[in-house]
Amino acid sequence: MAVWMKSFKVGFRGLVQPLAVGLARAGIQANWLTYTGFVLNVGVALLVAEGWLTIGGALFLLVNALDFLDGAVARASGTAGGHGAFLDSVLDRYSEAVVFVGLLVWFARADDLAAMAATALALVGSFMVSYCRARAEGLGLDCEVGLLQRPERIIVLGIGMILHEYALLYVVVGLALLTNVTAAQRMRHVGRLFEERRRRG
Amino acid sequence: MAVWMKSFKVGFRGLVQPLAVGLARAGIQANWLTYTGFVLNVGVALLVAEGWLTIGGALFLLVNALDFLDGAVARASGTAGGHGAFLDSVLDRYSEAVVFVGLLVWFARADDLAAMAATALALVGSFMVSYCRARAEGLGLDCEVGLLQRPERIIVLGIGMILHEYALLYVVVGLALLTNVTAAQRMRHVGRLFEERRRRG
Repeated sequence: MAVWMKSFKVGFRGLVQPLAVGLARAGIQANWLTYTGFVLNVGVALLVAEGWLTIGGALFLLVNALDFLDGAVARASGTAGGHGAFLDSVLDRYSEAVVFVGLLVWFARADDLAAMAATALALVGSFMVSYCRARAEGLGLDCEVGLLQRPERIIVLGIGMILHEYALLYVVVGLALLTNVTAAQRMRHVGRLFEERRRRG
Repeated sequence: MAVWMKSFKVGFRGLVQPLAVGLARAGIQANWLTYTGFVLNVGVALLVAEGWLTIGGALFLLVNALDFLDGAVARASGTAGGHGAFLDSVLDRYSEAVVFVGLLVWFARADDLAAMAATALALVGSFMVSYCRARAEGLGLDCEVGLLQRPERIIVLGIGMILHEYALLYVVVGLALLTNVTAAQRMRHVGRLFEERRRRG
């Protein structure tokens, strides 16, 4: 993860911490927030599919910033664990995917075949970044490396949607390229870890 | 996995076994076959995007039937291991995804927005089925359950492409629905396993 992103994350976590503690005290369960985040992303996808890109992009950034909350509430209420982490991961993938599908529909309506193909490849690449990590972890390896992890993807895509007339096509083409480069970085990383493992016998 | 699929798989494995042993003796590496399979699926995707659906569908079935070979060669040559399994999984996802992207482009060219949206949701659902399993395995749980695993998806989609005029739209809508149902089944399965784990303390 980029360094600026890491300090941003730490700062943001400090900001949401009091809110998370409050929600945990009020009896709000972390899983509810996870499901709510997904439903809100479906809403964003519908807005985007209808061409409401500026408001869709702004909501997309807001909704996914709140995505920090579920983990923070789980920790604050002492309910953090494997199941919550699983649900959060799976619904994060779904959330990102539905927004890309919304964009796909919008580009198809606008008859922009190139932008549509780029969006599809960006969807595939984003998935593959996460899949590589999950599959590597299943084999007992760490894989949190690479250029464009989820927070970076969210911020870039959200800004692209807000500035859609000027930036969205470039952002989507950039994501199509860089998410797949990130997946390739992870594949190479895993290859190296296996090579090391083999050498050490 | 469906029972018919399991016996089909066992029979098919028996058929390719001699071929796999021959390839392993000839010094063919399993990873080369994995990469070749991906490249051939990219070729299928290009055919499909150009509207060559019948030939694309037939090649799709053939290419992905040969996908059995890499694992068989790895076992026959004694090189089976984590890295090969990782590569195979990741490139299987990419292979399936590029073919869906090819279909997306074709439906977009045909101005069929409904079929396009269904294809996008089928792509997402297929990914999620695999992602759920990988993520569950990362948390130490088995997750090979559910209606539509990869061999079933391949066969249904391949036949749909071959009979495209009559069947493809229904197949894609069916996949959009059933892949996501399968992902939901896996999420529920994982939820139950965590519940059990919690009860046993």
